[in-house]
Amino acid sequence: MRSHYCGQLNKSLVDQEVTLCGWVNKRRDLGGLIFIDMRDREGVVQAVIDPDETAIFDAANKLRNEFCISITGIVRARPDSQVNKDMATGEVELYVKDLTILNASAPLPLDFNQENSEEARLRYRYLDLRRPVMNQRLQFRSKVTSAVRRFLDDNAFLDIETPILTKATPEGARDYLVPSRTHKGQFFALPQSPQLFKQLLMVAGFDRYYQIVKCFRDEDLRADRQPEFTQIDIETTFMSGKDVMSLTEKMVRSVFNELLSVDLGEFPSMTYAEAMRRFGSDKPDLRNPLELVDVADILKDVDFKVFSGPANDEKGRVAVINVPGGASMTRKNIDGYTEFVGKYGAKGMAWIKVNDVAAGLEGLQSPIVKFLNAEVAAQILERTNAKDGDILLFGSDTYNTVTDALGALRLKLGEDFGLVEDKWAPLWVVDFPMFEELESGALTPLHHPFTAPSNMTPAELAANPVNAISDAYDMVLNGCELGGGSVRIHNQDMQAEVFKLLGISDEEAKEKFGFLLDALQYGAPPHAGLAFGLDRMVMLMVGADSIRDVMAFPKTSTAACPLTSAPGFANEEQLADLGIQVVAKEVPAAE
Amino acid sequence: MRSHYCGQLNKSLVDQEVTLCGWVNKRRDLGGLIFIDMRDREGVVQAVIDPDETAIFDAANKLRNEFCISITGIVRARPDSQVNKDMATGEVELYVKDLTILNASAPLPLDFNQENSEEARLRYRYLDLRRPVMNQRLQFRSKVTSAVRRFLDDNAFLDIETPILTKATPEGARDYLVPSRTHKGQFFALPQSPQLFKQLLMVAGFDRYYQIVKCFRDEDLRADRQPEFTQIDIETTFMSGKDVMSLTEKMVRSVFNELLSVDLGEFPSMTYAEAMRRFGSDKPDLRNPLELVDVADILKDVDFKVFSGPANDEKGRVAVINVPGGASMTRKNIDGYTEFVGKYGAKGMAWIKVNDVAAGLEGLQSPIVKFLNAEVAAQILERTNAKDGDILLFGSDTYNTVTDALGALRLKLGEDFGLVEDKWAPLWVVDFPMFEELESGALTPLHHPFTAPSNMTPAELAANPVNAISDAYDMVLNGCELGGGSVRIHNQDMQAEVFKLLGISDEEAKEKFGFLLDALQYGAPPHAGLAFGLDRMVMLMVGADSIRDVMAFPKTSTAACPLTSAPGFANEEQLADLGIQVVAKEVPAAE
Repeated sequence: MRSHYCGQLNKSLVDQEVTLCGWVNKRRDLGGLIFIDMRDREGVVQAVIDPDETAIFDAANKLRNEFCISITGIVRARPDSQVNKDMATGEVELYVKDLTILNASAPLPLDFNQENSEEARLRYRYLDLRRPVMNQRLQFRSKVTSAVRRFLDDNAFLDIETPILTKATPEGARDYLVPSRTHKGQFFALPQSPQLFKQLLMVAGFDRYYQIVKCFRDEDLRADRQPEFTQIDIETTFMSGKDVMSLTEKMVRSVFNELLSVDLGEFPSMTYAEAMRRFGSDKPDLRNPLELVDVADILKDVDFKVFSGPANDEKGRVAVINVPGGASMTRKNIDGYTEFVGKYGAKGMAWIKVNDVAAGLEGLQSPIVKFLNAEVAAQILERTNAKDGDILLFGSDTYNTVTDALGALRLKLGEDFGLVEDKWAPLWVVDFPMFEELESGALTPLHHPFTAPSNMTPAELAANPVNAISDAYDMVLNGCELGGGSVRIHNQDMQAEVFKLLGISDEEAKEKFGFLLDALQYGAPPHAGLAFGLDRMVMLMVGADSIRDVMAFPKTSTAACPLTSAPGFANEEQLADLGIQVVAKEVPAAE
Repeated sequence: MRSHYCGQLNKSLVDQEVTLCGWVNKRRDLGGLIFIDMRDREGVVQAVIDPDETAIFDAANKLRNEFCISITGIVRARPDSQVNKDMATGEVELYVKDLTILNASAPLPLDFNQENSEEARLRYRYLDLRRPVMNQRLQFRSKVTSAVRRFLDDNAFLDIETPILTKATPEGARDYLVPSRTHKGQFFALPQSPQLFKQLLMVAGFDRYYQIVKCFRDEDLRADRQPEFTQIDIETTFMSGKDVMSLTEKMVRSVFNELLSVDLGEFPSMTYAEAMRRFGSDKPDLRNPLELVDVADILKDVDFKVFSGPANDEKGRVAVINVPGGASMTRKNIDGYTEFVGKYGAKGMAWIKVNDVAAGLEGLQSPIVKFLNAEVAAQILERTNAKDGDILLFGSDTYNTVTDALGALRLKLGEDFGLVEDKWAPLWVVDFPMFEELESGALTPLHHPFTAPSNMTPAELAANPVNAISDAYDMVLNGCELGGGSVRIHNQDMQAEVFKLLGISDEEAKEKFGFLLDALQYGAPPHAGLAFGLDRMVMLMVGADSIRDVMAFPKTSTAACPLTSAPGFANEEQLADLGIQVVAKEVPAAE
């Protein structure tokens, strides 16, 4: 029905007749003429209706915003004085020869010129998505998936689909369940990831697998969580972790290059231990120059228990963040930050304002300066590279509390002091511990129970599991985890040992993962992979605040859809078919 | 870890050192040497181990089928006498310099050299998929999706994801339900198709949408049905039905061309009425030359109620299939076919063996020939183009019974008499009725309730709904429906009228489809689309018997997964979280 998109009109088409289809973005009546800004997915162009064309003018008089129309007209160059440089098509306009109203529009329930509530935006999502910013984000997302697919196709990856109706998977979050009608009383689970299936595809010899695939977690939602999200899922055979990292880094660099004309450069790599030590995070935002600086060795012997206690405890930590220019903080500012770190378990926050480095102890301002001597003070100033006008903020507690609290504080200070550079800061975090030790002494996997340890036999792993390093790797961008992966266990004995260390009994292992253990005994190949969060990747690339802004039809924070009113009630017949009954009805208080 | 795939070795690599990774396909000990057929996803190559290489020979002696190994060796040309022409790599072999066993294999539970039960194949799917035929089918499938995506990308289509957790959709089959934890007592439904969402995406202005997407139907399974299946889902704005047909025909032709080097040619188009009349099917297999020939007008006045009854009833039908060479049928054969058409409601089957056309009535052999006169017989022979040695098989009953029964009989005869040509026979079926009239007089949609009628106002539709033709189209290939689509209703009044004709009350329409009706009032554009069944398309292309053979992890006919043992029982805590209880437990008798 159209010859061109609105956004495609330009000077090369002057004097040509074109037909456009789209929506009335705005109508203005000016100097006896009617001007229509007409919009389609590629952009906006101005159409002009002359009162001499009586029939068309009458029709144009009926137009309101968001009417769906078709226009045939002649492209004209605008006089220099009327060129609109803010508009891609601003050098031309369309002189209308024919106008058809394809569908009228009632007045909109959303005002495009103001912020609308999330509930309203989701309820009228089809209108919200007409907004150019939203329309472009989803178009951009489509370009990302297309670029990713092309890269993987070109690298001999096969797109293989795995089931959505499957068995509970082991990622640890809550599963969505689906009652079975043919096996009454039993349930499928929606996959939290295709982890086990992709491993089985490697056992089956497909060599290189990928899938851009929906995954499901029934968790309480946060800004960057949704019940269903999309993963770029990758698995390879006969490749080392380094090979997988190199290949996927190349993929992400090529996507950024193609779609944003950004060269991310070679990604630096950092161990988990270093990331936690310097940045208090396993996904450090390297755009933020602040770092955690360890000073326990300097403060070991001071006569101040708050410092000397943790400094002499092997599970303790004493660390400082030096905030350049931070000496201007008021007492109230400092109290605010003290309260902030309190949320992470810190019982207080010592601080030192550095007024005059040259003046030694005299130049420092702090309630705790009395506990320090000149030498200690000098060492701290030197190590933190403090300058006049800076402030030093201290954490002193268990290793985990200091690391968490200062890691969070670092991010907040970076924002508050405008220190976060406007750039892309990718990195790899590697050498994760295999396990995290809970207070009970029990072990949980830092990645998942199929992650292989680095260069170890099952016996070596069993001898010292807490210190074992895994062959896992996370790709981090601007403080967000873009993706994570690992070399997987392909040896049945090793897999059995890991289950044992995790306290999974033989019976439970067999019940839950028996098919994987079975598969490992038939010549399972070495394999390794990685999964990216597509939603988050696109969100970062387009600069959106939430993954909801890069999904066509997201759910609310109570996992509902205001557009379709899902979820809804089932009827008795459906429930009887499934052999289930509803015993509790409850809707979230927020609604 | 590898330098080449096994299947890539050829004469151009002679004298080069290569490293391969893969599986032991077969080991033979011959003339003091060990020969290993080594397999990966790209093919098989022969490796030779010389007893002089003692360490390697000892390792090779341990090899059994399906061990996972890595071999480094020198490519050698085979002597002419040993070239294996049945093997793509048969001109070369690998002289082994190094051999590593990456993983041993226990004896396999499946014997690759024989047919295995479906249950066993699915339970050990990761082994079943190692079979080259299965491995290649899934690789082929990946190439199909990739070719489809490239075509659609090149045609400005956007890949946009729609929700899996959504509201019950109107396709009419049973939904899979997902209990909500945050809205206890309520349920999501898994989509039977993204129909309404893709229409909303058109309202949102995305112009051209596609998605290769999982759809779900909780139906009793047949050979070509699965609980989850994959659709190539397409929707366009401002395109006519003809435009959509032309574009998607181009797509399918290009995929066949690219992957099978087959030119499907221009697709013929046939109305639904013609398809039913000539072939007794809305998806005629044009490889089969048999046709249904109407003869009611000829038999109107014969003194044989079986013919004259339906021939004079406007809802009746009398039709013939002429089977070339069919006069050789025995009485038992004929009884068999009579029983066969009985399954479709036919109360009997009249037949005439054509022994000698030139002899007129005398040349015909049949219990019913006595009811015919020479003129009637001659007319029938002429219209059916019968030759000596043919048999005429009659259907005489209501229009639907005759059409169904002879439609099915036609297919069976085509198979039994080897009449089905070995070729590709695509076509479009168009001009479907809007509605099917049930015996109760109620109307159901032949496609779905969002299908637009051809060139009609709501009032015209209401005046004569039974004869209304829709703007729908099906793509048929070799008697299978590859895809179907339609122009959609974009006018709120028309949509309301269709709901009304279908007996959907205002209240029900609002409850189920209110959001669609809402959307139509805000400048909804004209839109049209189509959806292909990807599984079936791939099945036809690779010549598999069942869509299960082109899916990585299909379910059994009772919708279970023998590999993961899904579905399974949920624990009390999970059920309590969801506010549901199991009240009936039951497993299918077949298990």
